[in-house]
Amino acid sequence: MKISLTTGKSISCSSGTSIINTLKKEGIYLTSSCGGKGTCGKCKIIIKSGLFHSRSKIKLSSEEIKKGYALACKTFPREDLLIEVPKESQLTVEGQIATGRSKDLKTLLHSLVDEIRPITERFVLKLPPPSLDDNIGDLERLRRELFLKGESCLTFPFRFLPGLANILRKNNWQVTLTTLHIENCNEITKIFPGDKKTPRYGIAVDIGTTTLVLYLIDLTDGTLIDTASTYNSQIKFGDDVITRIVHATEHNALNSLNKSVISDINLLFSLLRKTHKVHIDSVDHIVIAGNPTMTHLFLGLNPSAIREDPYIPTANIFPVAYAGILGIKTDPNTPVYSFPCVASYMGGDIVSGILAARLHKKQELSLFIDIGTNGEIVLGNSELLVAAACSAGPCFEGSGIKHGMRATDGAIEDIRINRDTLEPELKVIGGDNTRPIGLCGSAMIDAVAEMFITGILDQKGKLQKKVSKRVRKGEDGVEFLVYSADGRDIVLTETDVENIIRAKSAIYAGFSILLKEVGYTFNDVQKIYIAGGFGKFLDIEKAIILGMLPDMPKEKFKYMGNTSIIGAYLCTLSKEMREEAEEIAKKMTYLELSVSRSFMDEYVSGLFIPHTNIDAFPGVKNLINK
Amino acid sequence: MKISLTTGKSISCSSGTSIINTLKKEGIYLTSSCGGKGTCGKCKIIIKSGLFHSRSKIKLSSEEIKKGYALACKTFPREDLLIEVPKESQLTVEGQIATGRSKDLKTLLHSLVDEIRPITERFVLKLPPPSLDDNIGDLERLRRELFLKGESCLTFPFRFLPGLANILRKNNWQVTLTTLHIENCNEITKIFPGDKKTPRYGIAVDIGTTTLVLYLIDLTDGTLIDTASTYNSQIKFGDDVITRIVHATEHNALNSLNKSVISDINLLFSLLRKTHKVHIDSVDHIVIAGNPTMTHLFLGLNPSAIREDPYIPTANIFPVAYAGILGIKTDPNTPVYSFPCVASYMGGDIVSGILAARLHKKQELSLFIDIGTNGEIVLGNSELLVAAACSAGPCFEGSGIKHGMRATDGAIEDIRINRDTLEPELKVIGGDNTRPIGLCGSAMIDAVAEMFITGILDQKGKLQKKVSKRVRKGEDGVEFLVYSADGRDIVLTETDVENIIRAKSAIYAGFSILLKEVGYTFNDVQKIYIAGGFGKFLDIEKAIILGMLPDMPKEKFKYMGNTSIIGAYLCTLSKEMREEAEEIAKKMTYLELSVSRSFMDEYVSGLFIPHTNIDAFPGVKNLINK
Repeated sequence: MKISLTTGKSISCSSGTSIINTLKKEGIYLTSSCGGKGTCGKCKIIIKSGLFHSRSKIKLSSEEIKKGYALACKTFPREDLLIEVPKESQLTVEGQIATGRSKDLKTLLHSLVDEIRPITERFVLKLPPPSLDDNIGDLERLRRELFLKGESCLTFPFRFLPGLANILRKNNWQVTLTTLHIENCNEITKIFPGDKKTPRYGIAVDIGTTTLVLYLIDLTDGTLIDTASTYNSQIKFGDDVITRIVHATEHNALNSLNKSVISDINLLFSLLRKTHKVHIDSVDHIVIAGNPTMTHLFLGLNPSAIREDPYIPTANIFPVAYAGILGIKTDPNTPVYSFPCVASYMGGDIVSGILAARLHKKQELSLFIDIGTNGEIVLGNSELLVAAACSAGPCFEGSGIKHGMRATDGAIEDIRINRDTLEPELKVIGGDNTRPIGLCGSAMIDAVAEMFITGILDQKGKLQKKVSKRVRKGEDGVEFLVYSADGRDIVLTETDVENIIRAKSAIYAGFSILLKEVGYTFNDVQKIYIAGGFGKFLDIEKAIILGMLPDMPKEKFKYMGNTSIIGAYLCTLSKEMREEAEEIAKKMTYLELSVSRSFMDEYVSGLFIPHTNIDAFPGVKNLINK
Repeated sequence: MKISLTTGKSISCSSGTSIINTLKKEGIYLTSSCGGKGTCGKCKIIIKSGLFHSRSKIKLSSEEIKKGYALACKTFPREDLLIEVPKESQLTVEGQIATGRSKDLKTLLHSLVDEIRPITERFVLKLPPPSLDDNIGDLERLRRELFLKGESCLTFPFRFLPGLANILRKNNWQVTLTTLHIENCNEITKIFPGDKKTPRYGIAVDIGTTTLVLYLIDLTDGTLIDTASTYNSQIKFGDDVITRIVHATEHNALNSLNKSVISDINLLFSLLRKTHKVHIDSVDHIVIAGNPTMTHLFLGLNPSAIREDPYIPTANIFPVAYAGILGIKTDPNTPVYSFPCVASYMGGDIVSGILAARLHKKQELSLFIDIGTNGEIVLGNSELLVAAACSAGPCFEGSGIKHGMRATDGAIEDIRINRDTLEPELKVIGGDNTRPIGLCGSAMIDAVAEMFITGILDQKGKLQKKVSKRVRKGEDGVEFLVYSADGRDIVLTETDVENIIRAKSAIYAGFSILLKEVGYTFNDVQKIYIAGGFGKFLDIEKAIILGMLPDMPKEKFKYMGNTSIIGAYLCTLSKEMREEAEEIAKKMTYLELSVSRSFMDEYVSGLFIPHTNIDAFPGVKNLINK
């Protein structure tokens, strides 16, 4: 049996293998936020001809089914098929976005460090050839040369010794070494024949509970060559960290969870590597930032104790691992640096975020919030760093939202509802000619705030059919039609709105209670940094109207985007940034809010737009009164 | 098909597998100094019944063939066989020798260090269990405890991290660590659950070109538990280091040579391990001492450059390796420390020997000679150490001598020829009731010197038939009958005598020329230390008569035995000794004698008993005149 694609490609297949897996084997990857459970509806394909069997149609409209849409993860061929993979279902590299981001990141990096000094170093050594008068051993010759370059402590792992004699003699005594600082000494991580000063690349990965983002970085000048992102396919084992820990513990599935994230990273890297023709030997190091559970699962560490009183991780500061041990498909000797964590629920992603937001270097008291699957908040300045977590859920990353998606090409990132016509005006990532595919986090916030302001949505989050003809009954209940073209609709359902309100309420409650616990109020806060995978822009005003952010002057807010990957980028390119990250982790104190009674009270009060206590939002109150 | 042993055991076999290999599979190991080439005649068995095919009988007398003797390495069964393995062919552990040696070694060790501090350390840690108030990570808890014990720099290899959480929790927060000092820091090499202060063992190995000796040592009190030795089965690829390097280079056989020595070590360790019921987890470290080529082959390093001008080893100071990488069958994480070498032909065995003989700590000028396959000589004191090599050949280790053998149970170690009866009087290792099997190095020296003194041998090394009825024509030419019983003879052939004379002449030439090169004479030398696998005693007087040692007062000589293994023993048990070894290697200067014209002249002059220049041996001259 075979599957033919409308692009002309033909792939052999079997009736026992789902179409998503058949395509995967040929290097065609589909997006999927549920990890293949058939519940997210993101891996849609169109079957043009041929018999097939679908185990689930739950996420397809009757219109779509009529047109031949099927979920690739739940569909199996019965005979030769001809299929089309719509653009929105394809997982692709994000070249266009990266180009723009690279300039911003380089500017940030250069504002922080005098020169680019990646955490691994390369030394090109031209050794004096041995003679009867200078007959020390090859290794001693190498050490002597490095000593002359100022490298007095050098760990030479045994595994490089067997190849040393040949590599030196075949290359006229020229050799290139890569080293990494480990425990007061520089360890050799690679040896190349001859002069291999370039090319050299670094990989930075943000391992989110919901989303993975990978940066391919040129270590010689800091250029962000490209980025790729996908949903963390561990989602099939559970949406949040607790469910995954339970799965690892009770189903003895640590290995599956570990393999899952490693294979996601391999997938993203292989997409970028092929696009940019990067040889795996040229990757000098990998830096990862993730929350403690994600870091544990990535490193294959048992996370059980993280969720059991007294909540202890195997480590907060991780020894350097190697790609080969972890199964990452670069050169097996590539060192993998994991961002240090703080406590069982305060991880390397936040340390990385603070590194990017620079709280630890500023006198003014600031709040930092990273809105991911688990919302984390840090209050601090150069004197103190206090952190807490609030469970926001993954909706702003597109998961659990019918037409939600990550902030990549085709995502609607900005929505305005015309005050007169009540028609939505959209901005799409990728430019005006890009066909919209779904809504990223910033658009969700816009949509809910705009619908609330225009009366399409009430304070409780109910859609008002009588206000807009775009409010209608859909396959999943009441919904608002955001966009419609070519017979494909993008909607926001009432259930989606409920999810968004729950998420924003958890975030606001986190802010309030952390301040209260440390004895401050919103008035003491000079700056609020907002991080998360919302897309390029987050409309602060809309987020205040939604009640997610406190009602403070707009200039006090700064939207930073995905700070976890930004911090990882900085660390990849700078030893100083690595040192700072370790200082941040040591300095930060974690407060446990989940045991706080007032947190729960505050959360329930926030399940309104903007809040039960409208007086906390005077600006929004004015707006409503208008 | 099967082979039955006279002991009652029965082993299945096939016509394509030699008997030596069939026995090996069942854990019955035969001695063999040629590595299975059929040329040493040491793996003799007696076939009591059954048809067989022998590819070589070259080392068997017609008498032996009549009695059913066959070479196990060259004999293949045609049908069921009943065989006997004579004691002299069996490879066994050397318990009896070890017991005596242990006391001497402990005395030496305690004379040098205040306390036993093996190069690896064990820490039993009882960690305070975590609580909500003390909720640092497991690894940080471990580091904190070690820091309190004074261990400030600690390398924690990533490979131990995945198991850490379980090991701590299952053992009530008690754990035992083993560490080894590597590059200014202590690296964790093992983690045991609970209190595992004991048992702990170390292995010391002397990797000689001809002979391997392995010591099993109790690290808690320095007891030498037992020793085992065998021929280096690399011999099948060549007798000396040059032939082996050529083989590794031209036949691409580095891997075979490496596997060969590793499997010899595994064999010796497995014999001792089973005898003394030692669990492989209890071995904390392995220390090896060998010449540069042996060390390279052991570590799997390409030795080619050692024999090519300008004679460069891959390394003189080796990074710590691990049992798992090398294929040694202990716990794979067991660190392997290789004695540092000095130059391409001056190795860790000599550094180890100097460590044992203590030249580097004495004011008096001393000579040290290690008589192995390659004779090495060191002249020095606490100020200087100058070394040179002279190619002595392996005869004193039993190789290339018809009835030669290592100094183990059953070896004749002392021979006196009665001046009146001209009958030999023998001493056998293992006591008077032990049946003699062959001659070890000290007995060879005795025999030649005694035969010379009694006129059975002339100055040129020719046997005199008219002097003794024990001189006769044998299967391999003229021979002297040393011992005869139960129809089995032990002889010394004229060819054996030639080999012995060549060896002694190389040694004496080495002494003379090294002194000359440095500008000293024998008169400046206060002490001569003699090392080698001769057995417990070496009769200095006989060695002078032979012309191997200079004619100096007997009290200036000290026979040390196998100093390479003694130094390895000391290093296994003492960090200070490891440091001293590294200082010795750095301090020692190597002189290349093989290019010296006068060395060759001196060597040729020495091919007489005692020497062409009899005036250099006034004492012997007197003796002859008497």
